[in-house]
Amino acid sequence: MFSGLSAFPLTPVNHHGIDDRAYIQLIERLAQANVDSIGALGSTGSYVYLSREERAKVASLAVKNAAGIPVIIGIGALRTDDVLRLAEDAQRSGAKGVLLSPVSYQKLTDDEVFGLYETVTCNLSVPLVVYDNPSTTNFTFSDELHGRIAHLPNVASIKIPGVPTDAKAASERILRLRDKIPNHVTIGISGDALAATGLNAGCEIWYSVIGGIFPNVALALTKAARTGDAALAIQLSDNLTALWNSFKNNGGSLRVVAAIAEEMGLVSAPSLPLPLYSIQGDERERIMSLIRTLSLS
Amino acid sequence: MFSGLSAFPLTPVNHHGIDDRAYIQLIERLAQANVDSIGALGSTGSYVYLSREERAKVASLAVKNAAGIPVIIGIGALRTDDVLRLAEDAQRSGAKGVLLSPVSYQKLTDDEVFGLYETVTCNLSVPLVVYDNPSTTNFTFSDELHGRIAHLPNVASIKIPGVPTDAKAASERILRLRDKIPNHVTIGISGDALAATGLNAGCEIWYSVIGGIFPNVALALTKAARTGDAALAIQLSDNLTALWNSFKNNGGSLRVVAAIAEEMGLVSAPSLPLPLYSIQGDERERIMSLIRTLSLS
Repeated sequence: MFSGLSAFPLTPVNHHGIDDRAYIQLIERLAQANVDSIGALGSTGSYVYLSREERAKVASLAVKNAAGIPVIIGIGALRTDDVLRLAEDAQRSGAKGVLLSPVSYQKLTDDEVFGLYETVTCNLSVPLVVYDNPSTTNFTFSDELHGRIAHLPNVASIKIPGVPTDAKAASERILRLRDKIPNHVTIGISGDALAATGLNAGCEIWYSVIGGIFPNVALALTKAARTGDAALAIQLSDNLTALWNSFKNNGGSLRVVAAIAEEMGLVSAPSLPLPLYSIQGDERERIMSLIRTLSLS
Repeated sequence: MFSGLSAFPLTPVNHHGIDDRAYIQLIERLAQANVDSIGALGSTGSYVYLSREERAKVASLAVKNAAGIPVIIGIGALRTDDVLRLAEDAQRSGAKGVLLSPVSYQKLTDDEVFGLYETVTCNLSVPLVVYDNPSTTNFTFSDELHGRIAHLPNVASIKIPGVPTDAKAASERILRLRDKIPNHVTIGISGDALAATGLNAGCEIWYSVIGGIFPNVALALTKAARTGDAALAIQLSDNLTALWNSFKNNGGSLRVVAAIAEEMGLVSAPSLPLPLYSIQGDERERIMSLIRTLSLS
């Protein structure tokens, strides 16, 4: 289950709460494309902005409408007690896995992060993905800490925030991490701009933002890399360079994919929880022009 | 009200929730010392780790036990709708002011942060303190943005994260900010190690962590600086250099003051919301030895 393409959908939110109908359609779109798994309530799904009740509802909607495709639910929160409650809710909804980042306000220490994963994993009955995302959590995992956590029960995969752009350096980076963790724990690439490089370098799974909105493009790239056609994977990624640049210039992918989903009519605008806004104006027009040119799906 | 010493107490939390009795005693201690205001539910009060219900309870306990000393309540949260609800709760509890930081998961843009303050201030009937703390929010205010926000209705003060250590550079830094904001908005220093330098440089208020546990020491330092005895203020601060170093070495002040409060019997251990831990072992012993030597109160 923790290999191939894991697609991360948006959670459309407006002033009245979750837009159930739009969310169900986003999930159905991923089910029809037959992605390998769905990562509901990741950063793209605005998990940490939502209440426990909203998260339970979203988890349930995702599982019910995924047509049997395994769903991984984000359970991160600032406080360990809340994470434990969210883990219970996720499991009750029928999630096949959970995703946990060390969400921080006070910058966490290595021992605090290890303590969090230790407490949570020994209370789980589904596998867990360790979510390493320093740009949102302000916490940087060392490979040594990844190794300690990966040996805990129920840890199944690590979602890393990227790899070096150079192919050889990327392979070496994956080997260094692989050396510290058990064989059964997969390594997944995040940061879509580096997905092809990461998959080519040996990552077994792509935890993908664009997979949540353009599953077919993301599946093609994943398939190319996983069947050994590294050059095609890179080419498919290079086609999207303008999109990757837009992610970089807008503090990440979220505001850009939200704008795209709004423009495509997949969600109604606004779709992000305030104070966040999707990109607007010229930047939005530039991206939509690119999307039309590429006929993405 | 937004001048002098604003003391920020811990919120003692254990697996059962808030320790009401210990919290009331912390507030009474500050009331007896006659601090100028109490900053309940600041970062030291773990605001962002607590539920809405817990925060409402803490706000109410602080106001009821402050013996008339004005209480400022932290209302920060990731989502604007939650901030608005917390602002309502704070005002209902009898808070004389609120404190708002741009709490982030997705790194916020200037426009998003301005939008947050605009929405919140036009829904307030008490004054607001802008809480600038890049180490926890991962958001850095420009002076230009401070200026835009400070002109919004109900903005009364800005809590800045520090000043340069050099006295002249500190004065210049305060003047640059002062130049951008209306006269009625005060500037407050945060980051206790720089309090004396900040007050000497013209900050009107010290938003103080150690003021929450050693109000008399903090009052003496504040009085020295505010009555023009800059040298005495610096000397009183220099006496605590080992404490400032401990803050620096432990990711901020919280884990250190929690350990001190636990050792002094003001709160029972553990007192922080997991995954956070107060400092332990040798470091804890070193700090307690210093506290005993200085006979702080």
